[in-house]
Amino acid sequence: MTETTPAARLADLGITLPTPAVPVANYVATVRTGSTLVVSGQLPLVDGALLATGKLGGAVDVETGVAAARACMINVIAQVAAALDGDLTRVRRVVRLGGFIACTPDFTTHAAVMNGASDLAVAVFGDAGKHARSTIGVPSLPLDAAVEVEGLFEID
Amino acid sequence: MTETTPAARLADLGITLPTPAVPVANYVATVRTGSTLVVSGQLPLVDGALLATGKLGGAVDVETGVAAARACMINVIAQVAAALDGDLTRVRRVVRLGGFIACTPDFTTHAAVMNGASDLAVAVFGDAGKHARSTIGVPSLPLDAAVEVEGLFEID
Amino acid sequence: MTETTPAARLADLGITLPTPAVPVANYVATVRTGSTLVVSGQLPLVDGALLATGKLGGAVDVETGVAAARACMINVIAQVAAALDGDLTRVRRVVRLGGFIACTPDFTTHAAVMNGASDLAVAVFGDAGKHARSTIGVPSLPLDAAVEVEGLFEID
Repeated sequence: MTETTPAARLADLGITLPTPAVPVANYVATVRTGSTLVVSGQLPLVDGALLATGKLGGAVDVETGVAAARACMINVIAQVAAALDGDLTRVRRVVRLGGFIACTPDFTTHAAVMNGASDLAVAVFGDAGKHARSTIGVPSLPLDAAVEVEGLFEID
Repeated sequence: MTETTPAARLADLGITLPTPAVPVANYVATVRTGSTLVVSGQLPLVDGALLATGKLGGAVDVETGVAAARACMINVIAQVAAALDGDLTRVRRVVRLGGFIACTPDFTTHAAVMNGASDLAVAVFGDAGKHARSTIGVPSLPLDAAVEVEGLFEID
Repeated sequence: MTETTPAARLADLGITLPTPAVPVANYVATVRTGSTLVVSGQLPLVDGALLATGKLGGAVDVETGVAAARACMINVIAQVAAALDGDLTRVRRVVRLGGFIACTPDFTTHAAVMNGASDLAVAVFGDAGKHARSTIGVPSLPLDAAVEVEGLFEID
C-alpha cells in the first residue's frame, strides 16, 4: 500500500463518489457519537437504480453479488465523506462492516460476496481499512436489493 | 418540534411506558459502555403478549407490521428509561436502530414497516431522535414475533 | 460466582481456547476503537471443522444448536484473548452479543439456542459477562454454519 490518500486511491480505482442517497424515511444516513461514525445500511444503488435485485443462490450469481457489495460500499464511503465534509483523511479506521446477503436457504458463499465490500475498504483506506465484519444471509431486503452493507468508522 | 421533554411527548402521544420486559435468558436488557447505551433486541410485547406474530408478506399486513415496530420501539424506550432511572432527558441522541422484519422472501417494503419505530423515535426525542438505521428481513424471530428492534443510544 | 479469573473459569469448564481462526477474506477478527473491542462474526468451528451445519427447525435440533452457539462463543473469547495478548482480565464487560440462527421460517426457539453463547459468557466472565443481545433467524450462513455469534467488549 503506497502512502497516499483515500481520495487518491478512489481516483486510481476510477471511482467517483456519488451524491449520497437521502434516506427514504424518518432516519439519517450517519450519526456521530464520540469518535464513532455509524453509517446506516446502504443498498447497491448506482445512479438511483439498484445494481442487483433478487437472491444469491437464485437469479443473482456470485459475480453480480460481489459487484453489488462493492456498490453498497461505495455508497457507505460516500456517506462517510458527506459526514466529514469530503475529507476522508479524517477516517482513522474502518471498524466494522455488516453484510446482509439476500439469498436462498441453500446459499453458502456469503463471504465471497461480501468481499466486494471488504476488498474496496482495504483498497481505499489501506491498513486503516482492515475491519471486523459479520456477514449473514437474509430472505429479503428493502426494495428487493440483493445486498445491504452497514458500517462503523472511527473518525477524527 | 416544540421545546419539551421526551416524557411530555410520550404523554402527548398517549403512551405510558410499560414495565420493561425482563430478558427470558442469561442476558440483560441494556449495557452501558462509556456514553453509549446498548439496548437488546425488543419484541412487540404489549401487556405480555406479542402484538403480531407471523410474516410480513404472509399473514401479517404492513399496517400491522408498522404497529409492531412501534410497539418494539416503545419497549426500547422503556428499557432506556429504566437504565436512566426514568429520566429520558439524559438521552443525548438515538444513535442507531436495527430493524428485523420477519417476512417472506418476496417481501420488499421493510422500510415502511420499520418506520413505525423510526417515526416514534423522532416523535419522542425530536432532533435527537434522528438515527442511523439498518433494516433487514429475517425468516423468523424468537417466539414467532413479526418484528424485532434493537437500539444504540448516546446518554449523559 | 467465586472471585476468580476468566482463565481459571475456562479451565474449570474444561475449555482450552483454540488458536483463533484467521479470517478467510480481506478483514480482521477484531478491531479496537477506544475501549471497545469489536469481534467479527464467529462460526462454530472446532478443530477446523464446523460443529453444526444446516438449519434449526430442519436437520439441526436445539441441543445441537446450543452446542454450536457455545462453540461460536468459545471462538469469540479466543479472538478476544488474542487481541489482549492472552490476558482476559482486561475484559471489563461483555457489552453485546449478536446471535444469528440459521433456521426454517417456522422456527421459534432462537433464544434457547443463543443461550449456549450467553451462558458461557456469564460462566467465564461472571457479572462482567452479563451482556445485551439480539438474536435473529437467518435463511443461511457462510459455509452452511448453523449459528454465528458476533461480540462487542469493553476492555482495558
